Amino acid sequence: MRFLRRLEGEKVNFNEALDKRAAIVEEALDRYLPSADVYPQILHQAMRYSVMSGGKRLRPVMVMAVAEAAGGKADNVLPAACALEMIHSYSLIHDDLPAMDDDDYRRGRPTNHKIYGEAMAILAGDALLTMAFGLLAKCSNSRPEDVVKVIAEVAAAAGTSGMIGGQVVDTFSAGEEINADTLEYIHRNKTGALYRAAVRTGAILAGAEEKKLAVLTEYAEYLGLAFQIKDDILDIEGDAAKIGKPVGSDLKNNKATYPSLFGMAQAKKKACQAADKALSALKLFGNEADFLRELVQFVIERDF
Amino acid sequence: MRFLRRLEGEKVNFNEALDKRAAIVEEALDRYLPSADVYPQILHQAMRYSVMSGGKRLRPVMVMAVAEAAGGKADNVLPAACALEMIHSYSLIHDDLPAMDDDDYRRGRPTNHKIYGEAMAILAGDALLTMAFGLLAKCSNSRPEDVVKVIAEVAAAAGTSGMIGGQVVDTFSAGEEINADTLEYIHRNKTGALYRAAVRTGAILAGAEEKKLAVLTEYAEYLGLAFQIKDDILDIEGDAAKIGKPVGSDLKNNKATYPSLFGMAQAKKKACQAADKALSALKLFGNEADFLRELVQFVIERDF
Repeated sequence: MRFLRRLEGEKVNFNEALDKRAAIVEEALDRYLPSADVYPQILHQAMRYSVMSGGKRLRPVMVMAVAEAAGGKADNVLPAACALEMIHSYSLIHDDLPAMDDDDYRRGRPTNHKIYGEAMAILAGDALLTMAFGLLAKCSNSRPEDVVKVIAEVAAAAGTSGMIGGQVVDTFSAGEEINADTLEYIHRNKTGALYRAAVRTGAILAGAEEKKLAVLTEYAEYLGLAFQIKDDILDIEGDAAKIGKPVGSDLKNNKATYPSLFGMAQAKKKACQAADKALSALKLFGNEADFLRELVQFVIERDF
Repeated sequence: MRFLRRLEGEKVNFNEALDKRAAIVEEALDRYLPSADVYPQILHQAMRYSVMSGGKRLRPVMVMAVAEAAGGKADNVLPAACALEMIHSYSLIHDDLPAMDDDDYRRGRPTNHKIYGEAMAILAGDALLTMAFGLLAKCSNSRPEDVVKVIAEVAAAAGTSGMIGGQVVDTFSAGEEINADTLEYIHRNKTGALYRAAVRTGAILAGAEEKKLAVLTEYAEYLGLAFQIKDDILDIEGDAAKIGKPVGSDLKNNKATYPSLFGMAQAKKKACQAADKALSALKLFGNEADFLRELVQFVIERDF
């Protein structure tokens, strides 16, 4: 793996930059979400419970970082960044439902339906998905035709040929023998599609030219793959306290993963290869893409 | 009620016009929805099961009729019309879930989760909501800034200050004593907001001037109210075979309705008053709004 060679100080700088961006996202999410004392309060409380429960905020941070790498301003794409996070958050609320993965904990806290009940969890998820598109429509600093393009892309990425398609295949193939093609389909769609959309959203809203959009898309695809393989690895080797959920849940649910299909050593190799390709995709860019480069390393090295 | 005085032949003409528009919507929905043999098939089958199960198609027909009344072309707003129908359809799938209203039948057929299971019903609903925004973004015959405006409006109408807000209050006030204000909140948001959005979508995409947009919005609000009161009346006086669900379900679920709160005679009077106001709102328009006028009468007189 030909990663950036760097001093410990640079790593600290990256973590600081990541935290700073995540804090901007948190503040914006808090501002965009209806206040918990607005009627009907319980709905807004349920939405806030999940969205404001932390998490790495990688998708919105990517929207902002890509917009900057493409010559735009992070502030201008903040509504879109938060929209992507809300879509991610809704998908987790619905995935955790008893009819789906039936998970009791998420990020170390009881899942939404354990606190608010199933009906409210379904509605809070619906509301976050709906609000996400409302926020995308509020990117008034970008050209309207670019906003429309982004909305079409996000809808495709979150829909049946993207995230929901991946979720369906994942849910309905649990316990079955699946092959590498199906595993790739699940990951490319269930998580990869939204990463891809996050990157393209930042680039399109910043008015990136076609060539840059194409290589950033390639970056997104490999970064998403690296992220997913690493997630699979952490489900086996991770520390439950750090990742905020029990380890071994994929095994318990009989889900196919990269380590289960290829063995741990090969899975780690695949993660590094994907990371390398994500970095190679950025060679068109100079320093303005350094944050995106560091992000690759972060995704591979994280222990949470 | 100072309704249109008309010959029996005119009523037939309206019903034919309504059927013709509904058929255009059906054909378009069939075209826009992913084919049932596209992977993952079960998801697309579940989506189609609910969307293609008939229904009056009033919302999409309103989008088209309003666009025409405002000087636009019905064909140009067809993606938006279908988007509104998909949002309506998703809301019914989720409302019928065991955790929500727990209904076994809808339009005379088993509800989505009775056929496909709860997990798939949740995901099919999510997918329809997502696809709706993708379709709105495909209204390429309208100005991009108008498309963005419509997406913001539809998201607001379908969200926590609209349909979902109304659904939350409806679900969580079942069995409780509620007053006229709460009943009005529920109806104005749960069903009214989407009618309003349908009308405004057609008008905005057709480039309607502000004054026309304002009176069409007024029309939509009163039409929605008339529709809802009529729905409440049909739940008591209707024929189960015609309305496609058991009568008395509001009573069974202890839901407040116009007849339960005001008595049947007063409820009918309120429906007629709302219809009158809907018609009055159209006085700015000539013959080009005749279909919208007939629609008011249809909503009041229907027995299904």
